[in-house]
Amino acid sequence: MNDVTELLKSHRSIRKFTDQAVSDELINEIVACGQAAASSSNVQATTVIRVRDNDKRKQLVDLAGGQPYVASAGAFLVFCADLHRSKLACELQGGDFSEGMTEHFIIATVDVALAAQNCVIAAESLGLGICYIGGLRNNPQEVSELLELPDQVYPVFGLCLGYPDQDPQLKPRLPISTVLKEEVYQNPSDLSGVKAYDEHIRAYYKARTGGKKDSCWSEEIRALVGKESRPHMRDFLAKRGFTMR
Amino acid sequence: MNDVTELLKSHRSIRKFTDQAVSDELINEIVACGQAAASSSNVQATTVIRVRDNDKRKQLVDLAGGQPYVASAGAFLVFCADLHRSKLACELQGGDFSEGMTEHFIIATVDVALAAQNCVIAAESLGLGICYIGGLRNNPQEVSELLELPDQVYPVFGLCLGYPDQDPQLKPRLPISTVLKEEVYQNPSDLSGVKAYDEHIRAYYKARTGGKKDSCWSEEIRALVGKESRPHMRDFLAKRGFTMR
Repeated sequence: MNDVTELLKSHRSIRKFTDQAVSDELINEIVACGQAAASSSNVQATTVIRVRDNDKRKQLVDLAGGQPYVASAGAFLVFCADLHRSKLACELQGGDFSEGMTEHFIIATVDVALAAQNCVIAAESLGLGICYIGGLRNNPQEVSELLELPDQVYPVFGLCLGYPDQDPQLKPRLPISTVLKEEVYQNPSDLSGVKAYDEHIRAYYKARTGGKKDSCWSEEIRALVGKESRPHMRDFLAKRGFTMR
Repeated sequence: MNDVTELLKSHRSIRKFTDQAVSDELINEIVACGQAAASSSNVQATTVIRVRDNDKRKQLVDLAGGQPYVASAGAFLVFCADLHRSKLACELQGGDFSEGMTEHFIIATVDVALAAQNCVIAAESLGLGICYIGGLRNNPQEVSELLELPDQVYPVFGLCLGYPDQDPQLKPRLPISTVLKEEVYQNPSDLSGVKAYDEHIRAYYKARTGGKKDSCWSEEIRALVGKESRPHMRDFLAKRGFTMR
């Protein structure tokens, strides 16, 4: 429809990068774009930690479950949900920080994601490729210690940025009619969109892998939500001050 | 730096819209851009409900705490974190959905925010203005009933879209040196960035209101985090199947 919507619709995760460094100027511009995103009550709960040190990057590879591009990307940023700064500001004004509210956890987490996605769009517009690293939540306590995060701060995800050294295909998405509904959540038991997508993505995987990968969305989703996922998260978050009351 | 970064950095929330309708074609393009955002394990946990009905829009104004632009915007979308579809897909493959994981809640909430921010950038590139409506979480149970949301789905926020009928100034943000850190979370007790920003935004508010608004960031943050915020959220989420285990 226009250059921006074409850019948005051309997103693919990039996991192989050239050796070209990402300049400080670009990172600053990218983070400034992140800051410009909407923020709930202007809380600005996003803190970004840029990790350059090679040893630390290698440790993060392991902590994220062995994703080598965490070390090989031109830049690696950790996006943290940060209510520590809000706590300090509250206390500066003589207030008592109300710790552990579920609502504050949602506000902070959404804030980070909105800012990060702005960073991603900025980066992609500048010719960089990106990959989100949710794997940091495999070992969030160790990541928090490595980055010396204070309480009221947790690492939501990492972000690899760099100049792409691969050109993967777009991954097809669910039919828009399945995700965009009118007035109410119509036909909540209707599986027709999922089944159509299962066929579509199975064909896509087969084509991309020369027939080797033969699976579909609902099989992958079963693997994701059909078991406990990162069951340490609740206790980790509680320990960091996010008790979810 | 380029047209896209300029677009990103020009964001202001718009709360006054012309009467011009937003076409279905635009909404479809905007939501398609949202779908193109990265999604954790491709879970695609975003469901968007477009509300057109005038009566329903008026009810949502009240449920969101009296924000009239929820009714007057050219279009109103509700962004829902949706694990109901994942549950169905899991069961389609003979799996048992693992309900209530904190991690799944994070995945779904982040997914929605990434998709929504893509929608926002698409909309703004197409000449629309937007305003996020976190106020839907004032009365999330009533919103869920109005939209007939099944369990495992919750409304994260709404989004007003329309043609702007105002031209507000950019709101200044925290200094980038306060939110972008190197290697570790340096000087966690340092308040210099917050204090500088307090002065900056106080001057901004005064200038914008002819001296009437005389407050600063840390005062506003005290009002936000110095008290319980939406304390119903935990029980509401638990009732919807997000027990945070």
